[in-house]
Amino acid sequence: MNFPTGIGTSDADSISLLGQDLAHDLMGKVGFGELAFWLVAGRRPTPGETRVFEAVLVALADHGFTPTAIAARLTLLSAPESVQGALAAGLLGGGSRFLGVTEDAGRFLHELVEFSDGDDWDGVAREAVREARAEKRLIPGLGHPVHKVEDPRTPVLFALAREEGVFGPHLALFEAIGRVHPEVLGRKLPLNGAGVCGAALADLGLPVDLLRGFALLARAAGLLGHLAEERRRPIGMDVYLTVDRNATYEP
Amino acid sequence: MNFPTGIGTSDADSISLLGQDLAHDLMGKVGFGELAFWLVAGRRPTPGETRVFEAVLVALADHGFTPTAIAARLTLLSAPESVQGALAAGLLGGGSRFLGVTEDAGRFLHELVEFSDGDDWDGVAREAVREARAEKRLIPGLGHPVHKVEDPRTPVLFALAREEGVFGPHLALFEAIGRVHPEVLGRKLPLNGAGVCGAALADLGLPVDLLRGFALLARAAGLLGHLAEERRRPIGMDVYLTVDRNATYEP
Amino acid sequence: MNFPTGIGTSDADSISLLGQDLAHDLMGKVGFGELAFWLVAGRRPTPGETRVFEAVLVALADHGFTPTAIAARLTLLSAPESVQGALAAGLLGGGSRFLGVTEDAGRFLHELVEFSDGDDWDGVAREAVREARAEKRLIPGLGHPVHKVEDPRTPVLFALAREEGVFGPHLALFEAIGRVHPEVLGRKLPLNGAGVCGAALADLGLPVDLLRGFALLARAAGLLGHLAEERRRPIGMDVYLTVDRNATYEP
Amino acid sequence: MNFPTGIGTSDADSISLLGQDLAHDLMGKVGFGELAFWLVAGRRPTPGETRVFEAVLVALADHGFTPTAIAARLTLLSAPESVQGALAAGLLGGGSRFLGVTEDAGRFLHELVEFSDGDDWDGVAREAVREARAEKRLIPGLGHPVHKVEDPRTPVLFALAREEGVFGPHLALFEAIGRVHPEVLGRKLPLNGAGVCGAALADLGLPVDLLRGFALLARAAGLLGHLAEERRRPIGMDVYLTVDRNATYEP
Repeated sequence: MNFPTGIGTSDADSISLLGQDLAHDLMGKVGFGELAFWLVAGRRPTPGETRVFEAVLVALADHGFTPTAIAARLTLLSAPESVQGALAAGLLGGGSRFLGVTEDAGRFLHELVEFSDGDDWDGVAREAVREARAEKRLIPGLGHPVHKVEDPRTPVLFALAREEGVFGPHLALFEAIGRVHPEVLGRKLPLNGAGVCGAALADLGLPVDLLRGFALLARAAGLLGHLAEERRRPIGMDVYLTVDRNATYEP
Repeated sequence: MNFPTGIGTSDADSISLLGQDLAHDLMGKVGFGELAFWLVAGRRPTPGETRVFEAVLVALADHGFTPTAIAARLTLLSAPESVQGALAAGLLGGGSRFLGVTEDAGRFLHELVEFSDGDDWDGVAREAVREARAEKRLIPGLGHPVHKVEDPRTPVLFALAREEGVFGPHLALFEAIGRVHPEVLGRKLPLNGAGVCGAALADLGLPVDLLRGFALLARAAGLLGHLAEERRRPIGMDVYLTVDRNATYEP
Repeated sequence: MNFPTGIGTSDADSISLLGQDLAHDLMGKVGFGELAFWLVAGRRPTPGETRVFEAVLVALADHGFTPTAIAARLTLLSAPESVQGALAAGLLGGGSRFLGVTEDAGRFLHELVEFSDGDDWDGVAREAVREARAEKRLIPGLGHPVHKVEDPRTPVLFALAREEGVFGPHLALFEAIGRVHPEVLGRKLPLNGAGVCGAALADLGLPVDLLRGFALLARAAGLLGHLAEERRRPIGMDVYLTVDRNATYEP
Repeated sequence: MNFPTGIGTSDADSISLLGQDLAHDLMGKVGFGELAFWLVAGRRPTPGETRVFEAVLVALADHGFTPTAIAARLTLLSAPESVQGALAAGLLGGGSRFLGVTEDAGRFLHELVEFSDGDDWDGVAREAVREARAEKRLIPGLGHPVHKVEDPRTPVLFALAREEGVFGPHLALFEAIGRVHPEVLGRKLPLNGAGVCGAALADLGLPVDLLRGFALLARAAGLLGHLAEERRRPIGMDVYLTVDRNATYEP
């Protein structure tokens, strides 16, 4: 039985990663974000693609005291010897509700883009919003609980993608949804940043069924920041005591 | 009760990260590795520091079919709907044995560096190796199961750190250990790459009790590569069947 | 802000669990399986219910070298100091594919039971199998990769539920599916044990959206068995080397 | 390459667990706690051992809104589709600080018991407390943040172990520590319940390096209770908002 892989191999004298000599061709010559893209996509991104990709990772790295950041800090409080456990606990919250928008938006757009010839994004968008409305489904990436008028990340990421020449059909369709949805829904909602990130990642050709993976990678950096801060200036014990002391027994 | 944080906050119009305006000051302007450094260290690294830091992340991202990569793939096989679970399962192997060398080496060197005036690294190294030998302890980062003569990452990382002007006491002491240990142990072992990474991270001023966190961040990228490959060309089922079909019952 | 709970509270002199005095009313007086049922259902099970419930947990505890057991052992190999990490890694494979049948079957049956008056289970079963066939869906719990004729757990669990007087509509409908599906599908498949477990748990009145939780609890015991065996007579290193040494580089 | 195991195997007609026929010898005939003991210890416990073992699991199952319970609930809030992820996140807090006392106490006692002839537990205890005091180490299992006078679980577990004839050297030594420590420390601390649990598990002959595993198994049941309650009457969102709304930016 053989186990094929295109990722990494090593022997006594050399380490190979993605078919490259790790020590001589990659270390000091490829950035970390660039390598993450390469590992998943199986091809090295261009500098423009890398810039947009890293902007997405930066956009998704942290949102303050999210449930995942709190869970990671509480886990470090309980098991301070296991940084890997605290990080894993934080990432396990990277599911459908708080971290899923990126993948959901990318996938939603991808399904529409696949069957469009790209002539009329406003038309495609109008129909998609109508259909979602009729079926009482939400459009992934449309609306935000805090940024009710505009998510500040949205225009920046659109502009970056245009500047770097990687503004493709997913971003175009998402932008069209931002333009036409008020006609159908009767009110204007912002395109949220996590959704634009999903559109941008899809335009970069990354697999839509792994977009959540990039959100998780970005969040891993944010969670490390929280764990470092928890070591320097802990809040976990206060969170725990706030809940425990205000617990009321109700059968 | 207040919960202080220096990481992220947001309001209706803006998102702030590390005291910066996320959308306008960070996205497209800071790299992902650079941001990860900043999040943990609380200060923005210089370009030279960033280059060495990213070289470390690149060096640690993947080592082929490690136990952690196999565990992540088997978890994806069992629960394909949960990328976060597969990634977390892989990271949970980031403990003392296969991913701990970076932190162990950084911590070991740090304890020696703190009490040295830096005049005589060879002397400090000689004494440390002698002491470890007397107590039958291994020196973290010395020796490698595969790269028995030289780990190809080691000279590259030393050179990079020198080139970027961030070659500090931890790398100097580690290099000295590489020089003097044959006198004490009677045979020559290579300085392994994971150990040099730990020395380099410590020289960058990163907290030694979180060095494992960077190994985990690096490995998160490698694991995403494995999960993407597992989706395209799976081996998890073959691994499982290889074990299950060769199981023998022995009480 | 108050945080209501009906589970546990404590003060200086007493610990209360589920409204009972833990030390005096529960320890030594309630079994562990019984307590697990009580914690989730919010009511104490009868002795007959407890017997069937524990039989389900016993049935689901272990299936040898499953992907989850292998993942747990590999994680212990990498991070031997963190039993919680190895256990968590094993449980993370408790998703849709290898451990989901119990919940899927329970939920599938529950949706049919809710809209039936219970007069004619064969009729309900026939229609459900027809509909699934027309939509090319599988019936959860029907068929098994290894036990192609009969899963030995199935008749035992049916008999136990009858003996203890907790044979309800979910088991009745599942049994009917076992009876009538050959008429529709043209071949006879076994009702698998994990599916009967789901039907039995649903008949015990446990919440169908948490049935996977019981499979996970059962598996936690099996995984502890694997971790104990891994400590005594390890196979993790051999699994890792078998994969790594048979790795072939293919881009 | 063969992979030996004494846990489980199966073929087309039968499933074997621990060398028994799962369907005919175990289901309905062995309790779940009994099976968990058997899986780890490799031998079937007596009824008396089972009763004490299950009392330990019951004692450790839940302590209300612990950090691990809160982390599990927050993870369910973020990723409601992944019960396994929420359970795993909760278990990952089962480390040194909040769930480690059971193992720490068992191990501490075991090291002393191994080198004692059992004639004079008070003498062994006195010396151990003196030594710990001299080295400024805490005695695992001595003292409790809430139950400052007596942990209500302690006398109950001592009595149960005596009643069932499984009161062995670990419990005897722990009891002696409870008796003699005031002479040395100058004040009386309670023996806490988690510590007695560790002593009882060690007296049952379970491997001291896996005692944490039983605490985790027990806690898995408690966490399922919390997840079920979170589904019925959620508090996760309120915990998150309490923290997030009281966040203050401090560099």
